[in-house]
Amino acid sequence: MPVNLAPPAAGQLHPVAGLKFGIASAGIKKPGRKDVTVILPAPGSTIAGVFTSNRFCAAPVVLCRTHLATDLSPLALVINTGNANAGTGDEGLQRATEVCDAMASRLGCRREQILPFSTGVIMEPLPADKIVRVLPEAIASADENSWLAAAEAIMTTDIVAKGSSHSLEIEGVAVHVTGIAKGSGMIHPNMATLLGFVATDAAVSTDILQRMVREAADISFNCITVDGDTSTNDSFILIATGQSGASHIDHWDHPARPALQETINRVASELAQAIVRDGEGATKFIRIEIEQGRSREECRQVGYAIAHSPLVKTAFFASDPNLGRILAAIGYAGITDLDVTNIRLWLGDVLVAEHGGRAVSYQEADGQRVMREAEITIRVQLNRGEAHATVWTCDFSYDYVKINAEYRS
Amino acid sequence: MPVNLAPPAAGQLHPVAGLKFGIASAGIKKPGRKDVTVILPAPGSTIAGVFTSNRFCAAPVVLCRTHLATDLSPLALVINTGNANAGTGDEGLQRATEVCDAMASRLGCRREQILPFSTGVIMEPLPADKIVRVLPEAIASADENSWLAAAEAIMTTDIVAKGSSHSLEIEGVAVHVTGIAKGSGMIHPNMATLLGFVATDAAVSTDILQRMVREAADISFNCITVDGDTSTNDSFILIATGQSGASHIDHWDHPARPALQETINRVASELAQAIVRDGEGATKFIRIEIEQGRSREECRQVGYAIAHSPLVKTAFFASDPNLGRILAAIGYAGITDLDVTNIRLWLGDVLVAEHGGRAVSYQEADGQRVMREAEITIRVQLNRGEAHATVWTCDFSYDYVKINAEYRS
Repeated sequence: MPVNLAPPAAGQLHPVAGLKFGIASAGIKKPGRKDVTVILPAPGSTIAGVFTSNRFCAAPVVLCRTHLATDLSPLALVINTGNANAGTGDEGLQRATEVCDAMASRLGCRREQILPFSTGVIMEPLPADKIVRVLPEAIASADENSWLAAAEAIMTTDIVAKGSSHSLEIEGVAVHVTGIAKGSGMIHPNMATLLGFVATDAAVSTDILQRMVREAADISFNCITVDGDTSTNDSFILIATGQSGASHIDHWDHPARPALQETINRVASELAQAIVRDGEGATKFIRIEIEQGRSREECRQVGYAIAHSPLVKTAFFASDPNLGRILAAIGYAGITDLDVTNIRLWLGDVLVAEHGGRAVSYQEADGQRVMREAEITIRVQLNRGEAHATVWTCDFSYDYVKINAEYRS
Repeated sequence: MPVNLAPPAAGQLHPVAGLKFGIASAGIKKPGRKDVTVILPAPGSTIAGVFTSNRFCAAPVVLCRTHLATDLSPLALVINTGNANAGTGDEGLQRATEVCDAMASRLGCRREQILPFSTGVIMEPLPADKIVRVLPEAIASADENSWLAAAEAIMTTDIVAKGSSHSLEIEGVAVHVTGIAKGSGMIHPNMATLLGFVATDAAVSTDILQRMVREAADISFNCITVDGDTSTNDSFILIATGQSGASHIDHWDHPARPALQETINRVASELAQAIVRDGEGATKFIRIEIEQGRSREECRQVGYAIAHSPLVKTAFFASDPNLGRILAAIGYAGITDLDVTNIRLWLGDVLVAEHGGRAVSYQEADGQRVMREAEITIRVQLNRGEAHATVWTCDFSYDYVKINAEYRS
């Protein structure tokens, strides 16, 4: 039961000129399910990406990094669900390469112009032959208007398809930014268990696009957590087709870059928040704002300590203002010189704690009122600096256990 | 349903000469429940302790540290359940002090000779008056044979009382080591949410006892995790009454110290493992052995990444050999130069992964067989050094969520 999250309405995801989606059923895990998606950027598009920090990163992540490093223009992204091709060693690399080679041969391009993405179960061999077999069908179905169908085809344990679309003007020219993402469990930043694909018809040089994708990831996918598990396969890709006709953003200080960045950030944020809203078993959407820290890093550290605490998360599930658990999480976040008597904790608009203990004004009934809401903000003032950070998370319910105990069966 | 854990049998916990327990009902949270325990060491006993690293440590922890620093001989420990007196600021300190003062006045000693301990809900005012009122009753009931009753009286969400008792000989004299502990959730080392009290009738100098309690904590309570939440109140206390008649251990190289240390370590280990076996909602007891690391610290880091992963823990709950989740946890444990192709992963006696992927010999049926057992060993060889570490944890079930969502109601 995702928290205040509906799938994108028909027509809500604006197409991006120069980008098509093709979809097919390869029967990777279950027969009949749409499990292979190809994204086809027009020749001349630029692309950039950020990937998981997990040392056991998946074979497709290894290939993506290698292929992106060549600076060749990308001609296709091939995405499969049902198998992560992670923890699969050399054989996994070979199988991902087979898929790239088959696609390159179809398109008459080099292997390095193909980027592979996989999501699903870890440590099982990728059925590359099944994927290769449906590539012609996928290519044949390519359409600029299939964003929503693609958002649905890349889902795994997701309940709701995730997409976001916004527009801006660059020197009077309409420019579109549209994105889709998947992810629901194994969600922790750097990156989350997610695949995210955002495209714009703006024209952006590859090196600028790479900085832009990092900035967008930093304020979106790198601010969320469902369960603290950093996946082996996380990938967030930004594509610029350049087909809007707007002027080429070829340096960081280009006057149009901030507005484009802002729109990309907005799309990425909406996708990231959608992933939390659809977090496995989520019943609450929780925004954690840490203020007045010495550094952004320590603010994030405190935010994640709260967001990862199973005790805090189960209390939110129960709508129980057992808020001492938040103080405990702040206390063990690892800031060794933290003076807890300086901290102030708010739940929504209610001051809960200060001077090392419960605020005199705090009434359990006020805490209870906020806890019953589906969207809750926790605010912590550390009172030791100027930095701040936000973390988005969800609660921890019976259904999280159920979904993850039964995922493979 | 604790995992292979029964309460100590009558007579199993050998009394320690010079140490008595008194128990009373103060009605702190529920009427009629035994919720106040006093431990009365004979004059001349030595005492040492280790405490939580949580910055929001509870008022009684602050007082314990202060009182232990005076080097005055302890005359009483006062333990209450039902309220943690944590996140309670200056008022919490005052209330804990009131309890100490009342007990000191009863015993005709100094406040610093009283050590307070609290466990229960955080951020609610301690009803000190209720505790003070039953101190005479608790003192009047003092008995050397009440170890098991005390183990029961200090329980909170524990299902099974936890105690351990072993003996040794020092120069032909029988010496006893007996301990009790409580803890079930908010369990993560440095320290776990636990109170642990171990006593011996050996004679040990305070400074040696302090080193011995650290060593015992390091190989026991600091190796366990249930949910990764480090409590505000963790305390592990070691008392030596000196009444066995065995010679005084007054320096680290005393010939009897290693044998006594070993027995204390054994008691502490059994208590720590009992806490995991009684972990909230636990259905499996999981031993994680990390070998061939560069340092003990990095081995612990990998062990805890596995032990804290909700995805790993729910897979164990489901007896599902979804073992790629273990590889993912190893990969995000934070060892940035980890070469995953060198790692070997065993589940019980089954080699699961090597060369960065699934072992050729691995059969799902073998993994399934081990996963069905109630006691499971995960072994990871990092193949980059000589260090090793062990972490004990449990699985993550519906009941964990249930217990923690409903704890206060």
